Amino acid sequence: MSSAWLLPEHIADVLPHEARRIEELRRILLDAARGYGYELVMPPLLEHLESLLSGTGRALDLRTFKLVDQLSGRTLGVRADTTPQVARIDAHLLNRAGLTRLCYCGPVLHTLPAGPDSTREPLQFGAEIYGHAGLEADLEVHELALECLGRARVESLVMDLADARFVQGALVGVTLSPVQGDALRAALASKDQAELEALTADLPAMNREALRLLPALFGGDEVLEIARARLPNNTLITAALDDVQWLATHLRRDYPSLRLGFDLADLSGYAYYSGTRFAIYSAGGTDALVRGGRYDNVGAVFGRRRAAVGFSLDLKSVVEHVRFDGRRAAIRAPWSEDTALRAAVRRLREMGEAVVCVLPGHEHEADEFECDRELVAVNGQWVICAR
Amino acid sequence: MSSAWLLPEHIADVLPHEARRIEELRRILLDAARGYGYELVMPPLLEHLESLLSGTGRALDLRTFKLVDQLSGRTLGVRADTTPQVARIDAHLLNRAGLTRLCYCGPVLHTLPAGPDSTREPLQFGAEIYGHAGLEADLEVHELALECLGRARVESLVMDLADARFVQGALVGVTLSPVQGDALRAALASKDQAELEALTADLPAMNREALRLLPALFGGDEVLEIARARLPNNTLITAALDDVQWLATHLRRDYPSLRLGFDLADLSGYAYYSGTRFAIYSAGGTDALVRGGRYDNVGAVFGRRRAAVGFSLDLKSVVEHVRFDGRRAAIRAPWSEDTALRAAVRRLREMGEAVVCVLPGHEHEADEFECDRELVAVNGQWVICAR
Repeated sequence: MSSAWLLPEHIADVLPHEARRIEELRRILLDAARGYGYELVMPPLLEHLESLLSGTGRALDLRTFKLVDQLSGRTLGVRADTTPQVARIDAHLLNRAGLTRLCYCGPVLHTLPAGPDSTREPLQFGAEIYGHAGLEADLEVHELALECLGRARVESLVMDLADARFVQGALVGVTLSPVQGDALRAALASKDQAELEALTADLPAMNREALRLLPALFGGDEVLEIARARLPNNTLITAALDDVQWLATHLRRDYPSLRLGFDLADLSGYAYYSGTRFAIYSAGGTDALVRGGRYDNVGAVFGRRRAAVGFSLDLKSVVEHVRFDGRRAAIRAPWSEDTALRAAVRRLREMGEAVVCVLPGHEHEADEFECDRELVAVNGQWVICAR
Repeated sequence: MSSAWLLPEHIADVLPHEARRIEELRRILLDAARGYGYELVMPPLLEHLESLLSGTGRALDLRTFKLVDQLSGRTLGVRADTTPQVARIDAHLLNRAGLTRLCYCGPVLHTLPAGPDSTREPLQFGAEIYGHAGLEADLEVHELALECLGRARVESLVMDLADARFVQGALVGVTLSPVQGDALRAALASKDQAELEALTADLPAMNREALRLLPALFGGDEVLEIARARLPNNTLITAALDDVQWLATHLRRDYPSLRLGFDLADLSGYAYYSGTRFAIYSAGGTDALVRGGRYDNVGAVFGRRRAAVGFSLDLKSVVEHVRFDGRRAAIRAPWSEDTALRAAVRRLREMGEAVVCVLPGHEHEADEFECDRELVAVNGQWVICAR
């Protein structure tokens, strides 16, 4: 087999054992979202590039595969993230006056992998609520994310709260070029203190100290106390602290076993977040299983500035943390023209059983589908026997 | 809203009402395939172009979007059909000695639409059986295709049988250039008699007459009689007639209400078919809902020439023919910090109910999620009332 047949790097087939688990997880997640009243939408894989990328920032642009449309000659993008598409659907297609709850589940493609072990074809599931500026929407999204992981029996969850307004508040009064802003956010996201010192050296003392303090503000409740004492006392930071505190109080009440922490400089993920943010980890894991938060302005480029909160996850990552029940195995049946056998097979399948017919000549092959029972003729009747 | 936001031609969002039906259909199809012992696989959307297209013919090439891989500089294709990928998985990854039954469900992308109303992003479901040359495999695939449509309650089915060997048999002794071959197959597929006469004018009489007769060979059992009497009596044609007759007999026995016909020149779809073929229509429809057949050589380019039969369908087309049950609507609940209310909501969701919380300030909005019941406090208890 020539290496020409190997798949591109960071692209893989999903083989039967894992595919079945991903499909089970997919149903669990969609059923959980439906249980909360989130309606499924399926945006297309392809869109005009300017529609796909407007207002989403440079990181998403670099990650998006571009194509030329033979029908129009225009440039198309293959979606690298579904949130901007769902915002477009909310703004443009549904255009409802009230609350809109939407969810989605489908592949996205990335030109470059997010990390050394990341796939370039995540299977993205997400849920979003549009039209409510209050924290009840943030809390509902947290609850749904935890419900999804709970139903999938992902255990030992750790949740970090953050808020995009901490960095905004630390920058009040400062004007940065887009390049400076990107560099600063990158340094904060990677907690690169040396870079951060260089980038903030020329800023006014209040901004400089706030920005340099932010990466240290992760941990337990003491983080909020330090932030209240030492971050600038402006509207953005005060509102962020109050909101994060409110959410923490409510989450602790409803999820007493959840390990809840704070990471006030967390800026991972795309640039569209505007308010509270959260990430959920499996204890001991370094990559977040779920990321979400408030992105009130994502729909603005589509003509509708709506309050919006949501989260997303990659099924291919989360499935590794799911604890699955053993599933009932299949029934093996011979192949024959016998009407009674064919009727028996059909009945079993109608009852939800998997029945694998052994085609003529293949009687001595190993079962690839796990069969723990067999359909055999006993005194002219087809009955199920253990194997 | 500027037209820049409109989606590319033949690309559409799937909105909640249809998305829910497609998701239901998806589960029905995957469960039906599992009931027959077909294991789910998920090949990637992207592959190296030569792996994606080898041995599949020019039609698929023209339909495939091409991209450059930033990691390797090589050309990638976005899959326009999943069958060659599944053949690669059978040949290269699983490489099992015995029978292998596989199924898949995912989007494919087409550079150009198949017809004036076709989407360029079908959601393709298919099932394939590898490793059995006998007709029992063809019949099993027919049964599974009919089972899928039956479980989805697609009614008034019409099934046409064909075989790639009729055209091969009519061309025995004739050597055509690839261009001539393509033109001839196109004329046969579109039953373009004038074009066919031109293309066959210089062929030996036996081939010419057989090829000109083929487009007329569609209809009921009389078709097989005419074919036996008037097509060349060679191995390919005799075997095709015997096989199609065997399948028709078995299908009539098991599906007495199925309207079964023959269309011996049917060459629609991709060029990889090698033996019996079939198409299933909804009565009165002109586009096939399901196409399938035998393609014994698809895996050969991956180093494994295996017997193979399968079918595929587009969920976005089939869903229009599905009869759905009414689904139970959701329960509306107020939002409050009350522990008893939150516990009641959680219990209902655990029972599989959809409970939509009305966030503060949104009490007077119309329900977007159909709610036929409401959670209300009566004498300090939260109870469900009809609305």
